[in-house]
Amino acid sequence: MYNAIICRYHEIATKGHNRNMFERCLVDNIRHQTKAVAPCKVQRVRGRVWLEPKEERDFTPGEVAGLCTQLKKVFGLETFSPVVKLPVDMDAIREAAVKMAPEALKPYLEEKERITFRIRARRSNKRFPLRSQEVEIDLLSAIDRATGGGHLQLDLDNAEVTLGCEIRDEFSVLFWEQYQAPGGLPVGSNPKVLTMLSGGIDSPVAAYMVMKRGCATDYLTFHSSPYTPPETVDKVRGIAEHINSYQTKGTLYAANLAPLQKLIRDCCGERFRTVLYRRAMFRIAQMHAEKCGCRAIVTGEAVGQVASQTLVNMNTINRSIDMLVLRPLVGADKLETIRIAEEIGTFEMSSVQVPDSCTVFAPSSPSTAVPVGLAEAEELKIPDYALEIEKIVENIEKII
Amino acid sequence: MYNAIICRYHEIATKGHNRNMFERCLVDNIRHQTKAVAPCKVQRVRGRVWLEPKEERDFTPGEVAGLCTQLKKVFGLETFSPVVKLPVDMDAIREAAVKMAPEALKPYLEEKERITFRIRARRSNKRFPLRSQEVEIDLLSAIDRATGGGHLQLDLDNAEVTLGCEIRDEFSVLFWEQYQAPGGLPVGSNPKVLTMLSGGIDSPVAAYMVMKRGCATDYLTFHSSPYTPPETVDKVRGIAEHINSYQTKGTLYAANLAPLQKLIRDCCGERFRTVLYRRAMFRIAQMHAEKCGCRAIVTGEAVGQVASQTLVNMNTINRSIDMLVLRPLVGADKLETIRIAEEIGTFEMSSVQVPDSCTVFAPSSPSTAVPVGLAEAEELKIPDYALEIEKIVENIEKII
Repeated sequence: MYNAIICRYHEIATKGHNRNMFERCLVDNIRHQTKAVAPCKVQRVRGRVWLEPKEERDFTPGEVAGLCTQLKKVFGLETFSPVVKLPVDMDAIREAAVKMAPEALKPYLEEKERITFRIRARRSNKRFPLRSQEVEIDLLSAIDRATGGGHLQLDLDNAEVTLGCEIRDEFSVLFWEQYQAPGGLPVGSNPKVLTMLSGGIDSPVAAYMVMKRGCATDYLTFHSSPYTPPETVDKVRGIAEHINSYQTKGTLYAANLAPLQKLIRDCCGERFRTVLYRRAMFRIAQMHAEKCGCRAIVTGEAVGQVASQTLVNMNTINRSIDMLVLRPLVGADKLETIRIAEEIGTFEMSSVQVPDSCTVFAPSSPSTAVPVGLAEAEELKIPDYALEIEKIVENIEKII
Repeated sequence: MYNAIICRYHEIATKGHNRNMFERCLVDNIRHQTKAVAPCKVQRVRGRVWLEPKEERDFTPGEVAGLCTQLKKVFGLETFSPVVKLPVDMDAIREAAVKMAPEALKPYLEEKERITFRIRARRSNKRFPLRSQEVEIDLLSAIDRATGGGHLQLDLDNAEVTLGCEIRDEFSVLFWEQYQAPGGLPVGSNPKVLTMLSGGIDSPVAAYMVMKRGCATDYLTFHSSPYTPPETVDKVRGIAEHINSYQTKGTLYAANLAPLQKLIRDCCGERFRTVLYRRAMFRIAQMHAEKCGCRAIVTGEAVGQVASQTLVNMNTINRSIDMLVLRPLVGADKLETIRIAEEIGTFEMSSVQVPDSCTVFAPSSPSTAVPVGLAEAEELKIPDYALEIEKIVENIEKII
């Protein structure tokens, strides 16, 4: 019998004169995420966003479930609740609460005889005859009677079930659930970025995190055809399609690093290969980012995780370009990153073993400290280095 | 009656040929963190670190509590447990378990009559006569009898209390608690960095996160004396002293930005001040970092949080230097950052309101998109800009 969903936000509410832009962006994203599930009106009302069916009717239970799944993907939202909108009338509120209670409490009362329960009433309509506490007592005793009596134990601090009741000027609402959304800022409220997406665990999580800060993202992946199989790019395509569900759209591009890797293998010291690959990837990424209007590069790097991520090597790699590089996982523990990957559904996809670009001609013992000067000197040994980079950028393919 | 503490680690265990370095660093840090609490032997034994009293005796309860507080600050550790070390003998194990049970179960049985309970036995000593499951049954029935019978309900999945029992070749252990440590890598396993520490909520959390990735950190703060009061630096000193408890030592430096701020006020467009301040701070930070051997700069920046943290402005600020900048919070939601600040004890300190350097001559409506070229042109209007920066670097004071 839910006939609306109330969406709450936090960080956007702290914004000053550009708050309006953030709110409009949030509403657009909610519309985009929900349009395939149910035709909805999406409206801003006093610091909240309301979803209601286009025609005057209740949402079906299937629609409510589908909308909840989608709203959990909307950055900028903090929490949301399916609600039943009612007249400003205590009898109507009580009747609806009693009608909903058996269904809402069933999963708990199947497990045990007695559950902790509370009602949270808020009355912004000061002409309503009952005060908040009186509303709570009225509803509590009605629901207690309706569920056979004695099953509900009042607990104001740690209740297993909370019934929310808001009494406003134009209408009142009841809700039984408050779902967590990811928070942050709406995608599109900051400029587009380019995520270097490998088949690993980290980079999809990094992409997710910058989206959560409001940046739409395109993706660039590297392969080394014919030294890597087509599955290398297929795997990343699957990951990109999956994380695209958090934004309106993002394009995946693929670059073939093999021509340059052969030159690095033939001209440079073996132990420096990993760092030289990464410097080349960064250069290609910056050139491509500028082409497609991306304002920063995003990587899944974390300090100290692998040989190319020692501070010395990260610095040497970073010096190859001058564009801003965002590394949202730079201070994250591997287990935290895995936890997020599981939550957003990329962990299993990333765990499939496929050869990647970095492992082609990879040294058995890569140097963990290549100074900038040394890397530059090694690159000077490669004939037409800049031209080779340009050729790779020109041959970048659009995958999705 | 605890006479040892077992410390477990995760990410270090994934390291290859340099695992030894990480382990030694971890042991050094545990020694440093615990030396003021109790004189301990700290030893590596087969993928674990063991703490025992220097002389043969039990730890006092006060020492156990103190050691637990300290071990929660050791990066690289995943979990730890105070244990009682016993002979490899079932009678001795049972006797100790029965003796410890009333004390260990008391806080739970005071709350309710019946609690869920389990025993987790692991037997690496294959000559021990009982198998793991038999050990569990033996201990369970002994403890059940000793606590009056009927208070313990076996639950293998979600027990409120778990008793661990490990039977090794040389000794066996019992433990009732497994505490979470912060994970990551031991401080000092990566080179030192310089954190730009303001009085705000974010930068202390950023410092904490890079320490968690193994980087010791010094700190640089900015004031604008005489336009900011001495309390500006005092506040940051308090924060630095507090977060230093997570590492061996870190020096706090303070730079006076006021001379340059006056020039920026007098020579440049008002709306660009914030970005121009930040570019100057970055330049000063890089020069100072190079002086004191720091390999990267750390900031608390998060995309889209304030006017200087739009992607365009972050890029313009970043272009002022070429040193690696680590921004561990770049993808974090403000509420997540606040949660970490509360956890590490800096939130309250950061919440004290004191004027800071950024607010001096601050524009009422700062530009959210200053292109690099524009910032550079504005800086050319300042006579002797480079010299002014150098003077500020020369006058940097050491605070702690």
